[in-house]
Order: sequence, then structure tokens, then C-alpha cells
Amino acid sequence: MLLHRRHILGLEGMPADEIIAILDTADTLKEILSRPIKKVPTLRGRSICTLFYEPSTRTRTSFELAAKILSADVSSLAPSTSSVTKGESFRDTLLTIQAMGTDLFVIRHPCAGAPLFASRIVNVPVINAGDGMHEHPTQGLLDMLTLRSIKGKLAGLQIAIVGDIAHSRVARSNAWGFATVGAAVRIAGPPTLMPPGLEATGARIYDRLEPAIEGADVVYVLRIQKERMDSGLLPSLREYTRLYGVTAERLSRYAAKDAIVMHPGPVNRGVEIAPDVVDAGYSVITDQVANGVALRMALLYLLLGGSDAPRG
Amino acid sequence: MLLHRRHILGLEGMPADEIIAILDTADTLKEILSRPIKKVPTLRGRSICTLFYEPSTRTRTSFELAAKILSADVSSLAPSTSSVTKGESFRDTLLTIQAMGTDLFVIRHPCAGAPLFASRIVNVPVINAGDGMHEHPTQGLLDMLTLRSIKGKLAGLQIAIVGDIAHSRVARSNAWGFATVGAAVRIAGPPTLMPPGLEATGARIYDRLEPAIEGADVVYVLRIQKERMDSGLLPSLREYTRLYGVTAERLSRYAAKDAIVMHPGPVNRGVEIAPDVVDAGYSVITDQVANGVALRMALLYLLLGGSDAPRG
Amino acid sequence: MLLHRRHILGLEGMPADEIIAILDTADTLKEILSRPIKKVPTLRGRSICTLFYEPSTRTRTSFELAAKILSADVSSLAPSTSSVTKGESFRDTLLTIQAMGTDLFVIRHPCAGAPLFASRIVNVPVINAGDGMHEHPTQGLLDMLTLRSIKGKLAGLQIAIVGDIAHSRVARSNAWGFATVGAAVRIAGPPTLMPPGLEATGARIYDRLEPAIEGADVVYVLRIQKERMDSGLLPSLREYTRLYGVTAERLSRYAAKDAIVMHPGPVNRGVEIAPDVVDAGYSVITDQVANGVALRMALLYLLLGGSDAPRG
Repeated sequence: MLLHRRHILGLEGMPADEIIAILDTADTLKEILSRPIKKVPTLRGRSICTLFYEPSTRTRTSFELAAKILSADVSSLAPSTSSVTKGESFRDTLLTIQAMGTDLFVIRHPCAGAPLFASRIVNVPVINAGDGMHEHPTQGLLDMLTLRSIKGKLAGLQIAIVGDIAHSRVARSNAWGFATVGAAVRIAGPPTLMPPGLEATGARIYDRLEPAIEGADVVYVLRIQKERMDSGLLPSLREYTRLYGVTAERLSRYAAKDAIVMHPGPVNRGVEIAPDVVDAGYSVITDQVANGVALRMALLYLLLGGSDAPRG
Repeated sequence: MLLHRRHILGLEGMPADEIIAILDTADTLKEILSRPIKKVPTLRGRSICTLFYEPSTRTRTSFELAAKILSADVSSLAPSTSSVTKGESFRDTLLTIQAMGTDLFVIRHPCAGAPLFASRIVNVPVINAGDGMHEHPTQGLLDMLTLRSIKGKLAGLQIAIVGDIAHSRVARSNAWGFATVGAAVRIAGPPTLMPPGLEATGARIYDRLEPAIEGADVVYVLRIQKERMDSGLLPSLREYTRLYGVTAERLSRYAAKDAIVMHPGPVNRGVEIAPDVVDAGYSVITDQVANGVALRMALLYLLLGGSDAPRG
Repeated sequence: MLLHRRHILGLEGMPADEIIAILDTADTLKEILSRPIKKVPTLRGRSICTLFYEPSTRTRTSFELAAKILSADVSSLAPSTSSVTKGESFRDTLLTIQAMGTDLFVIRHPCAGAPLFASRIVNVPVINAGDGMHEHPTQGLLDMLTLRSIKGKLAGLQIAIVGDIAHSRVARSNAWGFATVGAAVRIAGPPTLMPPGLEATGARIYDRLEPAIEGADVVYVLRIQKERMDSGLLPSLREYTRLYGVTAERLSRYAAKDAIVMHPGPVNRGVEIAPDVVDAGYSVITDQVANGVALRMALLYLLLGGSDAPRG
């Protein structure tokens, strides 16, 4: 048993050896994705439920593909359109689905803590696929997997996370995760979008872009959600782009020579990131997506497969 | 061939030996659900279509899981969002899906009789997954399966069904089904929610809760839909709860000592049933859900698998 | 390798030998659909993504069933409900899904040319499942498959396509396809619904129904969309039906003795086609649906399976 935990709820507090064990397993399983026949029988007859209370194509599809490659069955529930409208409680929904024989839950929920709550209700593993503004641990892990495969290491790297920090569960998971494996994290964004207390992760906080990406090995760009403008937290998208937009010019002027650019997607081209940066050779955005499938395969395998080696 | 019928349209008129044959098959298949690898090849290469004109997570997912465990392929169609908006008739939808090679239809429809109509159009088996206020036979069968496994028998049991009888297809299927296998059915609810003619099932009708559950072995609680309030059929939820809400106090005072509580879900905690009753040891609501998968496996197997014994 | 092309984007310009190769492959694979166990391992471990920017039960389900029969995995994305609302570009959506390991895209899009655009972005095969008012090549191919299996040939047949030509991608694909294999195509419809330039396909254009179906071997009826009335292109449905509705009386009076009737579905009974014509023996509408699954199996096989013979 490589993991000491039964659930993946967040990267805060997850020790480095468990993170490394997950990344190593993902590296092993990644080879399956390059085969012409991407299918192993490892989790045949296991039933996985994705329970998404927020819409998501990207994360849900990634989990579904990971499950299918391992031959698991997947039920995808988006409860907003069904029982939730009938007023069933989250707790009863969990117990109902568990009673149907689900072996693992993947949960996305607008409320921080919902996956933790779920893990106390059900007696099968729970993976947090994003909860409110709290954590998105599988994104953090796939980002570490991507970065490690490109840079060959994680410890000692300078990582600048840029954007709407306050509303980003990705920023929180990555700040905790990267710090744990020995990278130095800098966080930059408009003061109105900077939450209090993030120093607890060990990150250094900047309110300007340039000093944050100075010499950085990685510039991690967060998505700017246009809804934030309406709430008065940002003066305008144009103003945000002018001050914090990640452009080729800023990268070449401030970041390390071999710096790479990451983004959790979906990107707003021309808002938080310039279109040519998205498509540049130093952008590893599609690598992140590909590694997402391998990382989720690893988690499903570790939480469900237990002791057996994955078979081909 | 254990069943004389090709379709499962309702429990009215289904003879006891067929009901028992279905329950016995479900009991046999239930063992598969407790295996670590919940997958048998029985229905490999068979194609099942769930055609749901009303939203449902619970019933649809239960059928899908049952089909996948038996290795069948499932197509899930919710026509409200597609061809129905293009004006295609129900008949043409059925013929189209049949022409694609579907081996069995599972149909939920807001109109009573739609599955019967479908069974006359297509030449493959049809299972009624709930039609208007008519019947929900797979719910009735899974309830009998649950009750038989707990009480060891069905004949002679005193069963009280409580709630909004008029709008409940569950009440109708259960009244017919339980009566057929020799249980004594009592039905209780507000007079405004009591349909005429239910005496035909052999049930005794009550307008107060207490005499209905007096000495009952089973208190079967129906869901109260809040929409009924708007239509003036109920004065208020609070009033309903005061008169008909199933509480621990009422159960211990009136029902049999070893009475159990059933509910088709989703529950409205604190409306038709007290929260502590839902979670009590004598509540078998999650057993009903688990048995639902086994019961639906049995129906798919009996209607499609025919003569072969299910193989492991 | 039977196909010279990597993508199926349209029938305009597709040479006759490729069309015939596809139809021949479909005829071979069709036998699988009549087996009790409709499943071959040909595309096991291959991952297909259906990406539908317009709702469709019929075409999407047909592709899904074709993929499942060949043992491929299918992810069905309807982006209107997810990332599109987050503002992600079509290009980024394609690159993201490709990065997850998709081996083939099936794309429906309201914009003509979207599948062609997609084929230049991704490096896996793309099948056009309908793009705006441009083409719907798999419909054209399944229509040729159906017609060839009934008439034993395609060359020399007289085919009348009737309806709202201007808004019909089906009309365009069929006009190109049938002309390529040597059939004579006539096109009839209200002048307000007749696009310019269709003579390029070699078809003869009519503004009245009767001369168009005179002696026709096939009357191919297009769906009239009620939305067209609102835009003023048609005076009324009743007027359309009076002038262009395909009735048994008109067929027997004008069409060839052994003429058949085709329709891409879903039909508007009583509008563009009389109800008794839909259900008549000379109507092959459900044959078209059944052949659609075989045709799509052939395309998936030819684009993905390559050199191997499909195994049973």
C-alpha cells in the first residue's frame, strides 16, 4: 500500500512521500496512454461515480477516460438536473449512490468541504475534483507531474502563480503542493483578488507581476473569470491584462531563460495570457491535460487497486 | 423460461408465481454485487436503451449499473432535450431507436400507459420505469425483494402505505404487488390525496395515520412533493407533517415491535418522515436501493438472457 | 488501406471508388448487427469523442452504438453546457480533448466548415456529423448504402430530393454523393427555399413537386423545420403541405411503380410527408436508421482500424 490515506481531499498536509508515490505511479501508468490499445483490465468490475454539482467537461472527462482505460465502469451524475431539484440532501444522495454499489466517488461541489463531508458519510474512497474556493488536488498533482517530467525535479524550482488568487482552488492546491516538495512559490495578483492567510503555505506574496516572475522557472497563469468584473473586484479586463497579462515580452524580460508557462485551462486568450504564449513551445498546457489522465489513473489505481501491480 | 410475459408494464395482474420467480432470480444475482469484481458476461453484446421523458438519477442509474454489471451496453436518452423539441412523435422515436439495434427499452414517461403503448410498437421487451400516476413496477418488485429478505416471507405481513396516494405510482404498484403475494395492505393519507377505486387492490383505506399503522409490520412512507401545496390539495407542509409525518414516537406507539420503515426515495427529511427515522436501524431505505440493482439485473436477465444460467 | 483520406468532411469531391469502398465495408460489417451478441473487439482500447455543438439524439446515438459494437470507448461532449459557456475557443477545446488521448473526433457544429477547421488543428481523424447548412456526409453515405441494398445498384437511378433545400445539409451531401455514383438527381422545393448554385452538383432543379417525382425511383423527403415559417420564407405549413407534401396519391400518380420513399428523420407526419406514406411498405426510413449504424461502424473501422480485417 503506497498511500496512507483513503481519500484525496486536498494537498494541504499531504506529506511529500505520498505526493512522490502518486507521481511515480502516474509516470508508470503514463506509458499505457501511448499504446495503440489503451486498455488494461486492472479495475474491471469496479464502479466509479463522478458526482459533479458544478459543470465541467475537462475534469469529468479526464476522470472518465482514466477509469475506462483501467476498465472500470463509470456513472456520471450531474445532480443539479435531477434529485437536487427534488430537494434530496447531499447526504442522502451519497448514501443512495453508495448503496447502488459505487466503489469510489469523484466529487465536484461549489461548497468548500463537501468532499470532506462526503468522506465521513460513505465508506469508500472520495476524490475531491474541486470544492468551492478550497482545493483542487488532482490539478495540483498533475501540475507537479508535468513539471517534474519537464524539469527533472521539483525541489528548488521558482514557481510564480499569477492571477485571481482569492477565487482559485487551483492556486491553493498548488501553493500547498509545490511548497511540500521543496519548490519556492511566489503568488501575484491584484490586491483585491488576494486572500488573507496565504503566507501559511510558505509562499511569498506580490501585488505586481514583474518581481513575482523575476527569474522564475515556471509562470503558472490562472484563469480570470469575467464574472469578477461585475462584482467590482476588478476595474476592467483591459486593466487586468495591462497589469498582469502574461506576454512573451514580459516572460523574456523577467523570467528565467528556460522558463515554462502553465495554465489549468480553459484559457481566456488575450486576457490573462497572450495568444502567442499559449501556443509557444515553452507553454506546456496540453502536457498538463495529457498528464491529467495519467495522474487520475494513478489515483484510481492506488485507492482501488491496492496491492496488485497494474497489468497490461 | 421463467416469465410468461415479454414486458414488465405493471404489477396489476402479474401472478404470484411470476413475481416470486423474479424475486428468486434477483436473490441469486445479488451475490454478484458483493464480489470485488462486479461483472459477469451474461448480456455481453446486448444493447439496452433507457428512454426517460422525466428526470431521474436514481432509477436510471440503477438500471445502468444493472446493465453494466451484466456487461450489456447502455444508451441513455432523455428526449426532452433533443428530438422531442424537434416534434418527433413518441412512436417514431421508438421505431428509430429500435432500428439502431436496441434489444430492450426501459421507459419513464409522464403519461400513464406510454410503456404499454411502446410495447405494442416495438418488437423487443419494454420495462416500465414509471409512467405518470399509473405504475412503477420495478420499485414494487424491489420493495418486495427487500421485505422478503428481511422478514423471510411476504404472505401475512401487515403493510401500511402512507402519504400522497393519488399522485403515487409507487403506491399503486405496491398495493397490487403486495396483495398478490398475500400481504395485507392498508393505505393512509389525506382525503384530498386519496384516489377513488383503490379498494380494487384489496387494500383497506384510512384517512388517519394511527389506525393504519396500528400493529403494522411495515410502514411504507411516500414522498410528499412540495408542488402539491401550490395546487391547494394540502393546506401546508407543516400541517401534513403534524398529521401524517412518520416519527419514532408514532412508530413505537402504534406499529408492531419489529416494524421496519421503507421509502422509495428521495426523502424529504422532516416532512413525511422524521430525520431520525430515516437513519434508524429499522429503516431499510438503503437496502431498497441496493436491492434495486439486483432486481433490475434479474429483469434484464429474464427478459434478455432467457434460457442460460448467469455465468460468473 | 481502402481510404485515401484521413477525414470524412463531405461528399463533394469524394471519388466514387472511395464511396464504394465505404459502402462495401459497411455491407460486410452489417452482418454483426444481426448477431445475438453484437460485439467485436476490433477497436478495443480506442477512444472516440463525439463533440456536438447542436443537440442530436439520432446521429450521436448511432455513432455511440457503432463505436460500442466495435468495443471502442466513447466520450460524448455537448459543449454548449460547459466550457463554451466559460469562453474557451473551439481550437483550445479540440487541443484539450486530443491531449486526453482521443483517437477520433465526431463533430456536429452549427457553423459550416467547423469540422474542416478541426481537421487542420488535430492530428487524428475527424468525421463531420453535420456542419451548418454545408454537409452531413454520413447521412449521404447511409442513404446510398440503403438504396444500393434495395435497388441493387446506384448508377442510373432517378432520385428526387424534395423540401427545404436551402437549409439542408442532407440535400447537399446527397446531391453530391448520388451524382458521383452515377444517379440522376432532381431537386424540388419552394423557390424561397432553393439556394443558388446547386446546379454545380449536376442536379436538375424544379420548383414544382410533380415533374420532379415523375418517374422517380426514389422520393427523398426532407424535414420542414417549423422555424422557417417564422422567418417568412414559407407562407404556412398548410400551404407547404398542399404544394409539396408527399402523399400516397402523388406517389402512385407520378413516381415509378417500384419507387421507394426516404427521409433522414425526424419526420413531421402530416407536414412534409403523409402519415400513411411513413408507414407504407415502400418507405425505407427505418432501414436508413439501421444502415446508419453499419455505415458509421465502417467509417470508424476504416479510419481507425486500418489494415486488419474486423474480427468476430
